[in-house]
Amino acid sequence: MTAERILYDLAGADESLRFSPHCWKTRMALAHKGLAVRTVPWRFTEKEAIAFSEQKLVPVLVDGDTTVSDSWRIACHLEDRYPDRPSLFGGAIGRGVSRFANGWADATLVPILARLLLPSIHALIHEKDKDYFRATREKRFGPLEELPPGYEAQIGLFRQALQPLRQTLERQPYLAGDQPAYADYAVFGMFMWARCTSAHALLDEGDAVYAWRERLLDAFDGLARRAPMIRS
Amino acid sequence: MTAERILYDLAGADESLRFSPHCWKTRMALAHKGLAVRTVPWRFTEKEAIAFSEQKLVPVLVDGDTTVSDSWRIACHLEDRYPDRPSLFGGAIGRGVSRFANGWADATLVPILARLLLPSIHALIHEKDKDYFRATREKRFGPLEELPPGYEAQIGLFRQALQPLRQTLERQPYLAGDQPAYADYAVFGMFMWARCTSAHALLDEGDAVYAWRERLLDAFDGLARRAPMIRS
Repeated sequence: MTAERILYDLAGADESLRFSPHCWKTRMALAHKGLAVRTVPWRFTEKEAIAFSEQKLVPVLVDGDTTVSDSWRIACHLEDRYPDRPSLFGGAIGRGVSRFANGWADATLVPILARLLLPSIHALIHEKDKDYFRATREKRFGPLEELPPGYEAQIGLFRQALQPLRQTLERQPYLAGDQPAYADYAVFGMFMWARCTSAHALLDEGDAVYAWRERLLDAFDGLARRAPMIRS
Repeated sequence: MTAERILYDLAGADESLRFSPHCWKTRMALAHKGLAVRTVPWRFTEKEAIAFSEQKLVPVLVDGDTTVSDSWRIACHLEDRYPDRPSLFGGAIGRGVSRFANGWADATLVPILARLLLPSIHALIHEKDKDYFRATREKRFGPLEELPPGYEAQIGLFRQALQPLRQTLERQPYLAGDQPAYADYAVFGMFMWARCTSAHALLDEGDAVYAWRERLLDAFDGLARRAPMIRS
């Protein structure tokens, strides 16, 4: 009856290090639905291992007889396939607006964090991935050795970019209201990306975003807090 | 049975000119709920006219025996008081995430648009409002005569800031999904602010945001499209 559920999950040289922001969105969504999953460590260049998904990026979820890639499509799959479990979106309007929150994290936070994190990510990935990683990332962000122009300034930019999130979290405990839902996980994935790959402190303890991140680190019996981080 | 519903609505020297982004959020929300309203033109310095609301800003909605100020609180009031009419939020999660969309518009778009619009708004408001407007706005944005540093650059910044919205609207017709809801109106209010006060073209016709704005201008029998604009 219960076919195995498998998530292909980006890993570092140390295969316990799982740092993809998009894979984290999916792991939190699975936990929200109360669905067990076996994660398979995957490296950037292992395209053949996920060729069956007909594309080249993780997360890839194999849910019994169904294969789904792309974190947003996976969230929709989970919501539609498991409607009786806790909702990720709370209906059509919530799904629509959650897509905006997801898009906001991707369009606004990824470029700022990438400039902060890419050099340290390059250092922690598997040797076989390093050339691929450098080539693809430098095409978008320029030479890794020149990133970022200055940590302090970049962290300042990041904190400023969080203003819409902060403003919301000063008024309610989660992006989705009183309880967390997919919109929260879509943004929280970014913080897991940073947490797993960098020793830099991104947030002040007095920041409403800090308190929110703490709550999500503790969610689902500390799923995210227990995740291995780089040794600094 | 049906007590009158009144909205205090920011007006220019010409009282038919209604340009407040936050009042527009409320007007669209009322239309979404199918609720009639009588708008009362209100100028920045007419604090006494709304003293009964125990604060100094519009929108102020008088809904029978209830007075509510602040566009977000008004939206929640309408949703809770008229639960059988079309939903603005679609439930608790949708409400939570819509607050984020609203906060995004306020935190991200207001500062950019203000630098573009404040000089022309100063020109179109009532004579008695001009000193108040200059004093309050210059405290935040600096001398009106020095705004913006360059229209082209400022419009470029605005278009770039719209990226999370654009990315969403390239995938679905409205921020809230297949149909518009409060998250749409919260952002659309910003475009009405610009439309009513400035002749500058903010968007390219090929932009997904442009097509979305067109749809919302046409919504509710063209409520927004019919609104008076400055003569340029």
